[in-house]
Amino acid sequence: MKIVVLKFGGTSVGSVTKIKRVADIIANYRKKNFNVIVVSSAMSGVTNDLISKSKKICQNFSDSEHDVLVSSGEQVACSLIAGRLIHKGFKSRSWLAWQIPILTDGPHKHARINNLYKNKLIKYLKEGGIPIIAGFQGINSFGRVTTIGRGGSDASAIVLAKFFKAHRCIIYTDVEGVYTTDPNKLKKAKKIKVISYEEMLEMASLGAKVMQPVSIQDARLNRIDIEVKSTFLNKQGTLITKRSNIINNRIITGISSTHNDAKVSLLGVKDKPGVAASIFKPLSKNLINVDMVVQNISSNGKETDLTFTIKNEDLNKTKKIIKENKNINFRKLLFKKDVSKISIIGVGMITTPGVTFRMFQALANEKINIQVISTSEIKISVLIDTKDVKKALNVLHKEFKLER
Amino acid sequence: MKIVVLKFGGTSVGSVTKIKRVADIIANYRKKNFNVIVVSSAMSGVTNDLISKSKKICQNFSDSEHDVLVSSGEQVACSLIAGRLIHKGFKSRSWLAWQIPILTDGPHKHARINNLYKNKLIKYLKEGGIPIIAGFQGINSFGRVTTIGRGGSDASAIVLAKFFKAHRCIIYTDVEGVYTTDPNKLKKAKKIKVISYEEMLEMASLGAKVMQPVSIQDARLNRIDIEVKSTFLNKQGTLITKRSNIINNRIITGISSTHNDAKVSLLGVKDKPGVAASIFKPLSKNLINVDMVVQNISSNGKETDLTFTIKNEDLNKTKKIIKENKNINFRKLLFKKDVSKISIIGVGMITTPGVTFRMFQALANEKINIQVISTSEIKISVLIDTKDVKKALNVLHKEFKLER
Repeated sequence: MKIVVLKFGGTSVGSVTKIKRVADIIANYRKKNFNVIVVSSAMSGVTNDLISKSKKICQNFSDSEHDVLVSSGEQVACSLIAGRLIHKGFKSRSWLAWQIPILTDGPHKHARINNLYKNKLIKYLKEGGIPIIAGFQGINSFGRVTTIGRGGSDASAIVLAKFFKAHRCIIYTDVEGVYTTDPNKLKKAKKIKVISYEEMLEMASLGAKVMQPVSIQDARLNRIDIEVKSTFLNKQGTLITKRSNIINNRIITGISSTHNDAKVSLLGVKDKPGVAASIFKPLSKNLINVDMVVQNISSNGKETDLTFTIKNEDLNKTKKIIKENKNINFRKLLFKKDVSKISIIGVGMITTPGVTFRMFQALANEKINIQVISTSEIKISVLIDTKDVKKALNVLHKEFKLER
Repeated sequence: MKIVVLKFGGTSVGSVTKIKRVADIIANYRKKNFNVIVVSSAMSGVTNDLISKSKKICQNFSDSEHDVLVSSGEQVACSLIAGRLIHKGFKSRSWLAWQIPILTDGPHKHARINNLYKNKLIKYLKEGGIPIIAGFQGINSFGRVTTIGRGGSDASAIVLAKFFKAHRCIIYTDVEGVYTTDPNKLKKAKKIKVISYEEMLEMASLGAKVMQPVSIQDARLNRIDIEVKSTFLNKQGTLITKRSNIINNRIITGISSTHNDAKVSLLGVKDKPGVAASIFKPLSKNLINVDMVVQNISSNGKETDLTFTIKNEDLNKTKKIIKENKNINFRKLLFKKDVSKISIIGVGMITTPGVTFRMFQALANEKINIQVISTSEIKISVLIDTKDVKKALNVLHKEFKLER
């Protein structure tokens, strides 16, 4: 009998009505003779509400008690789902992390699952039961409740799929799947039927709305097929799988874009080891997230130019840090707000020559200026003005025939 | 080092502000060098909200999942209290039933604590820790979450006090203690400083607002001193203890009264075994709660008169049941709405003659007609018209010098 792991996110179980729908979805898999393992998040809003209570108790609320507090949310959702399935005539029950148990190591709030005892669940599945497992939680070696970071229910689902060698792990969420590009920015964006783990990871800016990159990476390492689909519409979603499963008939799978970025260039930086570190260490310390980093080859062997992007709102802080830090030597500081990174992603580009050229030509035809370029094996990113994003997405979508 | 068990009810932990106050109270006991064990209920409103969600899932919501669902409420309250104590510099943590564990038997929703493993808690207390224990919950022999009935946090506290031979179990609540009579009905009602378990049990109608009778009985059997006091006012409460601890200088400790009662009399009932059962069985089956039952000695050896009280709202249903039930034989059915039971309670009456006379005389002086009389060792109850309750409480309070 094939096992499927079904994971439901917070919005999927956000109300009693939605939980009833979730129970119907689960029941359908059971009726099709699948062995079903369910993982649920907390009802949407609940976790934030609990965290806000803890912040009112004190700003430095204990990490271990934080985990006890927020893990109650999944407990509620699981019992309601199980209760509904029992009402519908199925054998079902909630399973809390300590009841399985799911063991974690690492610190509270950021624990990682390191083991999962299968025996009780195997017995329960053999009896025809549908286990509803509280995602996001575990226990540590001291028997304390732990949580595996926000969005961690995805990780719980992937671990269960791995331990039970599941046929598939299905992530039910509030979007229909992964799109060729952000449908809010380009109406003709199309849902992708199948995508490789690697492409999905590179499409982080699109994918993050769907699934945590760390969970995609876990699935990749364990070769677990993931399907992302809508809880509310009965439609095919997006399958995330290994490259060899994909009969590739596209060069480019998707286009991602960022917004609210700022570009910082340091001209005349000394071209010697440790320079980049001296710049990015104080930024990282100040929790400023650096995205794209490009350094040109030194023209004179002594100096180089370094460009990186940050969020618009971090620009003033960044300038201050750079100017005040005596360890950073440079001739000139340039910066520009409202730039965007456009990336085309596709494993197809490995074997297809001329992709870079086609991208640049298409943008040039629209008179879009490329400010910075950065490439990886399956991704080409360029920095352009944010005002040109819509035009760029449109022309690239067309150039690589993504609307087909 | 003396151990105190502090139990906080739902209203005591009903908001973040109140939880901070609760942490202050706990801290004060710790500073006075007590070993403190804390039991908390869920924040007020939470349990009802969760139950209402389950009712929306389905009317016949699974009992076992009900327990998983509602036990999350205590988990939240305990983590918030522990978090606050940690913030204040104390060693503290939440303890869920499965972490101790607290073992129960009996059915879900109505489980009973049958064992409690002390080792981990003893170690924790020795390290100077303040355990915040989730009340109302346990686990059964299958490792499932159980709850011990509504208001069951009192029972958790009493069990902990028993197992740890606590110096005292203090029930923090939203009232100041137990009163000589309902302060809403008689302004000059006085807080009782000390009362015996037996009197407290007989004052159910007053005591139920403060503590579940079943927990008082548990405390009585285990000789645990209970203090009931206000979370919000720093005032002495009411001590509930064994009779021998009370230097009794009062004949009567308190006066209780009911309201919205109806009286039903069956005249000419056959005086033979099984008659009472034939009347009360169908009432019980229909969930009609019968309070006072009085049967007079048969005057002719063949027939007797039977009187009992029910709630006003059950009167029509009761009449219907009696008339339609062919097993109930009687000559005449009388009934009267809006009667009240007034009871005077006190262990002092055992050794003091004339209490009954004084009660009846006091009521007679006020021209209050006594319709039915029933007595026990430490209680005398009479049935009067509800309109006379205020007058009766007033005169009895005065007669037995309760305002002193």
